[in-house]
Amino acid sequence: MAAAALAWNAAALLDKIRARHPRIHCVTNGVAQGFTANALLAIGAIPSMTTSREEIGSFVQGADALLVNLGTLDDDRRQAIRLAIAAAKAKALPWVLDPVFIERSPSRAAFAREIAAAGPTVVRGNETEIAALSQGQPVDAYARDLKAIVAATAETDHVMDGTRVVGTPNGHPLMAKVTAMGCAGAALIAAFLVVADNPFDGCACGLVAAGVAGEIAAEHADGPGSFASAYIDALYGLDSGKLATRARVL
Amino acid sequence: MAAAALAWNAAALLDKIRARHPRIHCVTNGVAQGFTANALLAIGAIPSMTTSREEIGSFVQGADALLVNLGTLDDDRRQAIRLAIAAAKAKALPWVLDPVFIERSPSRAAFAREIAAAGPTVVRGNETEIAALSQGQPVDAYARDLKAIVAATAETDHVMDGTRVVGTPNGHPLMAKVTAMGCAGAALIAAFLVVADNPFDGCACGLVAAGVAGEIAAEHADGPGSFASAYIDALYGLDSGKLATRARVL
Amino acid sequence: MAAAALAWNAAALLDKIRARHPRIHCVTNGVAQGFTANALLAIGAIPSMTTSREEIGSFVQGADALLVNLGTLDDDRRQAIRLAIAAAKAKALPWVLDPVFIERSPSRAAFAREIAAAGPTVVRGNETEIAALSQGQPVDAYARDLKAIVAATAETDHVMDGTRVVGTPNGHPLMAKVTAMGCAGAALIAAFLVVADNPFDGCACGLVAAGVAGEIAAEHADGPGSFASAYIDALYGLDSGKLATRARVL
Repeated sequence: MAAAALAWNAAALLDKIRARHPRIHCVTNGVAQGFTANALLAIGAIPSMTTSREEIGSFVQGADALLVNLGTLDDDRRQAIRLAIAAAKAKALPWVLDPVFIERSPSRAAFAREIAAAGPTVVRGNETEIAALSQGQPVDAYARDLKAIVAATAETDHVMDGTRVVGTPNGHPLMAKVTAMGCAGAALIAAFLVVADNPFDGCACGLVAAGVAGEIAAEHADGPGSFASAYIDALYGLDSGKLATRARVL
Repeated sequence: MAAAALAWNAAALLDKIRARHPRIHCVTNGVAQGFTANALLAIGAIPSMTTSREEIGSFVQGADALLVNLGTLDDDRRQAIRLAIAAAKAKALPWVLDPVFIERSPSRAAFAREIAAAGPTVVRGNETEIAALSQGQPVDAYARDLKAIVAATAETDHVMDGTRVVGTPNGHPLMAKVTAMGCAGAALIAAFLVVADNPFDGCACGLVAAGVAGEIAAEHADGPGSFASAYIDALYGLDSGKLATRARVL
Repeated sequence: MAAAALAWNAAALLDKIRARHPRIHCVTNGVAQGFTANALLAIGAIPSMTTSREEIGSFVQGADALLVNLGTLDDDRRQAIRLAIAAAKAKALPWVLDPVFIERSPSRAAFAREIAAAGPTVVRGNETEIAALSQGQPVDAYARDLKAIVAATAETDHVMDGTRVVGTPNGHPLMAKVTAMGCAGAALIAAFLVVADNPFDGCACGLVAAGVAGEIAAEHADGPGSFASAYIDALYGLDSGKLATRARVL
């Protein structure tokens, strides 16, 4: 799909999310839970957040997509993640892996590689995290081997599946100054995967929507505190017209 | 108490909360903790939030009311909840049960029924959660059997004790687009229970205050992000005059 | 260092934080994590937040300072804190102890005294918490015995090392109406400790910066909800000029 077509597709997928209200189960860290839930609600999705082993299977069974964020990993969380992924695979749900800060902890990096091998639909991380995960392998080759879409975020995000790559330059520097912005972005990707024809487009369109919301929010912000609120407002007010007008895909 | 009298009572109870600064211990999920604590501080109450088994007894002993929210339940949390309820009952403190998302998890629903049988002062949930808890029994009959006040929230909230029912229509649709809004509302009910003459009035007045704050906040918001901040501002700025003027009870 | 010199020093240290981007590992409670992370990002530091025993050693090893906040203590958290402190001491990192709410729980108070004995660089708490920690000993004598800087926060904060005391009156009453404001302030102190010549100045300058940001935020706030956002904006917009102009040290 060509760049212009992807931008239009993002707008169409947003309308589908608003109509369908996909349920996104998020295994994410305590820092990110509230902001991620509010981002999903603002886009029209329904978040759930439990990380309890006793409950997570039921919650994922009732969901349309799964987000696995590796922030704050203990034994319980690891087991909950394995159960969540098993439930997602049993229902063939799309799921997103967000390997937060794996370059800071060898045990977290090892666990991330185990989880990546379980077949995520999308792996989304910043360039440092993706490099730690791919252990130096070129990212497009890593994506091909993994049979997953890999999104490496930076000033321009790049989406790869091993055969093609698109860049999504929408966004604003204040996005890097708000905690959980990337975690929430991964949750938005999960929502787009539910309604997309294919995961490559779903991932790219989710990144585009997040970036456009960031640009709109920056026009109403005095700093990262007001930006965080304005970002949720921008996601809520985003419509297919604004998205199609502002979306840029390289 | 007639509807108009309830509205005036809400204003009087707000003044009492501002004067007394009741301590509300909240067992709540990580998504809701920050927002709930800020809502309680804004209304003049003092929140505490630990869910550690080692500490929770002491914290509840030093509190004036208890909130038990069932989001994110694991074994530790279940044991902490049982200890918290035992401490609340030993001191005859009012306590509120919020059976979040129990329709999504059989194990959570079973635990909710165990906790409901322990004698909460108030059970507050949305209509789906309350229906899952009462297992199809009419809600007013369920409230009578439980000997508790049951508040079922929707566009108009309904408060029942099995012999009477009032509707509290204050509120705004943006309240459904902010995570933890209901959880924070249950915490506000707990604060009103501390100063109310009876739990029915306390519950109804807490819902009225939350709804009025939502209406005021919506006048200052551009979407759910700015609405969440404006809601805390509105609770902080709420006074008996505004509350008595805007309160509606059916 | 005289009062005026301290105010100028705060401005110089802020510039150093903006240039160096110190990594602050925070063991803090779920209520405080998001707000604390955003405060650190706004000042130019890089937060990490895991409390998992398996990971915390690696994270602290890669950090420049450590914050230990005692909110929500269970067995796992206690062990993680001991591991984090051991890692900080092995690298001679500065670390801050924040004994939240220890007056409410004997088990938490006992643990706080154990941790205080491990040699924190700074102990920061409100007057009630510090009194519970020092068990009635005069605070300056307690600081001397502990060989730590003790900061007791109130309308005017006081910083003591047992031989001298300074007062830092910057701040605003709305700071007491936002949850996690003190926790975030302790994290800011940790960032200032990284770049300060000595911990007394680092602690005092961190408190001054937090207080000045509070004063600026109050000029843009309608209540504690908008104040919380404005506080993050104010930290982000703080520069050495504003800080030197507004800083007051007694």
